[in-house]
Amino acid sequence: MSEFTPTERTQVKRLPKRGRYDRETVHRILDSGIVCHVGFNVDGQPYVIPTNYGRKEETLYIHGSAASRMLRTVSAGIPVCITMTHLDGLVLARSAFHHSVNYRSVVILGTAKLVEEPAEKMEALRIFTEQVMKGRWDDIRQPTDQELKATTVLSIALEEVSAKVRTGGPVDDEEDYTLPVWAGVLPLETVAKPPIPDVNRLADRPIPDYLKSYSK
Amino acid sequence: MSEFTPTERTQVKRLPKRGRYDRETVHRILDSGIVCHVGFNVDGQPYVIPTNYGRKEETLYIHGSAASRMLRTVSAGIPVCITMTHLDGLVLARSAFHHSVNYRSVVILGTAKLVEEPAEKMEALRIFTEQVMKGRWDDIRQPTDQELKATTVLSIALEEVSAKVRTGGPVDDEEDYTLPVWAGVLPLETVAKPPIPDVNRLADRPIPDYLKSYSK
Repeated sequence: MSEFTPTERTQVKRLPKRGRYDRETVHRILDSGIVCHVGFNVDGQPYVIPTNYGRKEETLYIHGSAASRMLRTVSAGIPVCITMTHLDGLVLARSAFHHSVNYRSVVILGTAKLVEEPAEKMEALRIFTEQVMKGRWDDIRQPTDQELKATTVLSIALEEVSAKVRTGGPVDDEEDYTLPVWAGVLPLETVAKPPIPDVNRLADRPIPDYLKSYSK
Repeated sequence: MSEFTPTERTQVKRLPKRGRYDRETVHRILDSGIVCHVGFNVDGQPYVIPTNYGRKEETLYIHGSAASRMLRTVSAGIPVCITMTHLDGLVLARSAFHHSVNYRSVVILGTAKLVEEPAEKMEALRIFTEQVMKGRWDDIRQPTDQELKATTVLSIALEEVSAKVRTGGPVDDEEDYTLPVWAGVLPLETVAKPPIPDVNRLADRPIPDYLKSYSK
């Protein structure tokens, strides 16, 4: 099934043209991100916490120390919302009213489940690492049993999901096109700067190829 | 008062060294962002929605069309959480377990109030525009009464606020420093690319100085 079925809760109502429900778009947005925002409730107060994540097929994994309030709370099985947003540009219109931004976002609604089976948990840790830096996992010391136990992993099925995408230039009111003001888009991009070796290194190590060619 | 008072809800419990409660740090993180994530509940389901914002002194404003479900819901006065995150780098440790990211985030808890007084509403619109692009407001057509009416503006007082900041290199387990693997930080930065003029322009306009020198 290549499309998510919009529900009452995921159907994009405001500016519906921006709604996307195909898995390819959703996967691509998720796979090019590093940090998502997880929303959950504690005693009726919403919390929104940035965290790392990884996707495998139709499952999103989030993790953190077992000490984290967020993870203790959501592992009890309460509803969560996970949102990932890329900001792609500033849309500068001729009127204040039509200023906007270009972006790609994914909103996932669901219930987070605690991942307890060790093999799935280890696989999730591999996916977190590879989400941050593809190729990294095979280079580094992998988790010990103790580290695996100290890490809480949660999974959320990609079932109730929508994406929203805005691209292109400003859309102004007809009568504003004659105004003597520059209008257009300032594209924004997240770029990697030269890698900074750890000051605490014992010896210089060559920069791995996956780091030299890094792009998300 | 230059410090926020941490509450039971905003005190950073996990990795408390990363917690920051001084207004200067909080303001600086907010002022250098474009999009925040707003968390709120509808029927017990959390939603996390990316949106533009602006800060004036100790008030944060968010806005959007009056048609937006988010704004209709939060204007009723339900609790919200607004989170702003900058991702500054990937922290590549020698073990999977110590991989991390460098970031600066602000979490604001509070109740969003509808801004109805026209002068404050207009001032909020100026602040939104200036948050996206400092210097832009004086160049463009400002909102009409009708546009002002069509825009919902919400305000949240900066009262229950915390920031969290991670900087620096990886911190590995003592015995891992001898491993033959590159470790360090890959710094990430959001940069502006050359501005793209609107294809629908009637005439070329000079690129304004505030756009040439853009940085956040």
